[in-house]
Amino acid sequence: MNQESKPRGVLSPVVTPFDSNLKPDAERLARHCRWLLTNDVGLAVFGTNSEANSMSVGEKLDLLERLVGAGLPPARMMPGTGCCALTDSVELTRAAVRLGCAGVLMLPPFYYKGVSDDGLYRSYAEIIERVGDERLRIYLYHIPPVSQVPISLALIERLLKAYPGTIAGVKDSSGDWNNTKAMLEQFQPQGFDVFAGSETFLLATLRGGGAGCISATANVNPGAIARLAASWRQADAERQQAALDAVRKVFQSMPMIPALKAAIAHFSGDAVWGAVRPPLVSLTEAQVGALVSALQPTGFAMPGLAG
Amino acid sequence: MNQESKPRGVLSPVVTPFDSNLKPDAERLARHCRWLLTNDVGLAVFGTNSEANSMSVGEKLDLLERLVGAGLPPARMMPGTGCCALTDSVELTRAAVRLGCAGVLMLPPFYYKGVSDDGLYRSYAEIIERVGDERLRIYLYHIPPVSQVPISLALIERLLKAYPGTIAGVKDSSGDWNNTKAMLEQFQPQGFDVFAGSETFLLATLRGGGAGCISATANVNPGAIARLAASWRQADAERQQAALDAVRKVFQSMPMIPALKAAIAHFSGDAVWGAVRPPLVSLTEAQVGALVSALQPTGFAMPGLAG
Repeated sequence: MNQESKPRGVLSPVVTPFDSNLKPDAERLARHCRWLLTNDVGLAVFGTNSEANSMSVGEKLDLLERLVGAGLPPARMMPGTGCCALTDSVELTRAAVRLGCAGVLMLPPFYYKGVSDDGLYRSYAEIIERVGDERLRIYLYHIPPVSQVPISLALIERLLKAYPGTIAGVKDSSGDWNNTKAMLEQFQPQGFDVFAGSETFLLATLRGGGAGCISATANVNPGAIARLAASWRQADAERQQAALDAVRKVFQSMPMIPALKAAIAHFSGDAVWGAVRPPLVSLTEAQVGALVSALQPTGFAMPGLAG
Repeated sequence: MNQESKPRGVLSPVVTPFDSNLKPDAERLARHCRWLLTNDVGLAVFGTNSEANSMSVGEKLDLLERLVGAGLPPARMMPGTGCCALTDSVELTRAAVRLGCAGVLMLPPFYYKGVSDDGLYRSYAEIIERVGDERLRIYLYHIPPVSQVPISLALIERLLKAYPGTIAGVKDSSGDWNNTKAMLEQFQPQGFDVFAGSETFLLATLRGGGAGCISATANVNPGAIARLAASWRQADAERQQAALDAVRKVFQSMPMIPALKAAIAHFSGDAVWGAVRPPLVSLTEAQVGALVSALQPTGFAMPGLAG
């Protein structure tokens, strides 16, 4: 993990396939990761859309080792390692560093609500001190609609001051552009990389000097999203952004994670992909039909998708 | 786990002591459990106030085995076993059943918000099927202010119908008496035991036919709370309830978990008890002083507290 190789552009919180017994399926996951890399999309495995918190620490450690063992490049990986339990976050983060991952995307502990910035600072500081490895690069994961535990600008400022080499950036999934803008203005100039939480804000984030986006829909529309990240200075950028938004809008009209998996199942012809762990529920056949129909006018396709 | 030995009265989500390295301290925990039992309070270890979600599954399995190994009666235990990850909930629940615990208090998976009753039903059903043990007794844990994932009356009805022997009751920490009342009226007559989430509603719950309460402040005021549960039909019940409320009010004026631990540290003279895991923060000395002063007029004491 060094400055030169810091992740930029587009990453995907890679959806996790489960077999008929709801066990994580490392082979299918590796296949999907390879397809994403072919499309210039990096691997933010164990994100919200990966159902990461629906898996045990042991299951995630096993998957991460298998992915690296299968030859997928850890330099393109930013696994989610933030858990409710201090000891879990430390264990997962240590493994990610040991395996050479480019960084980790770290949720704050999310069970208790209304906790203080002091408490959240203490949480990140404890993890950093316990991992105790200068290769560690932490991307803070701000996703208040789900975690209900926001990461304030004041907290980022304090963490950056205390751990300037380690606090590497943020994924802002607040959906609030004013917040992303404030992060870009206050922290990006210090080399703190701001990733938008979806491609909806990709162009705006890149124009504001940000690093890119980490987006659920990059699981299904990776090529087009990565293309905008690579060509955002060109004349057709607004048109590209509008085309991404049209696809995103279809997925957002359904429960996102089941819809992503249903699309992969449908376009690869591999029904296994439809499975989700509780408390999520797979799309019904009618919903899958509606999803596919709604995607048609956007010209959506998943070329080269691994079957 | 049989109907005759179903827990009733008062239980405490036992606070978890941590050593200077923030490791769970099984010996101090066992001592506190013994003091609670002496005061007729049962052991809902691994609750919200136990910082259960701030510990790994391995740490909880180890503590549970040590408590039983130290001679504490599993028939008086109702450990919290509901995690975000299906596999974690299954592992902890299996251990609780194997060790002979009276029941388990089960949070729904709490990372995703706005999930459907179908998804939550599927979560509980999967766990029940995977544990596959007729000794299992599940107490549903409804605590929307923290989990942000409510357990609806419709969900309870559906679970009770499918698993009448296993779905044993609920802890209602909604703080909404109308909800507790609805549970008492709809489900208590079927032998589904309703526990109020704090002693604030203890008298009302018992008068409504409920089983008792599972309360944070039972960690520090166990004798008086258990006395009301045992004598609620007597003439002084309202006066007892008012006295409990006065003590509870003081603790509620501070961050609850740090305040409970500070009180134990203060009244036992054992400073180790003050430690909390992040994201919580211990009370300051000034806060401890204010807590002790505010308790004085209530006549609060912790007689016989293990040092």
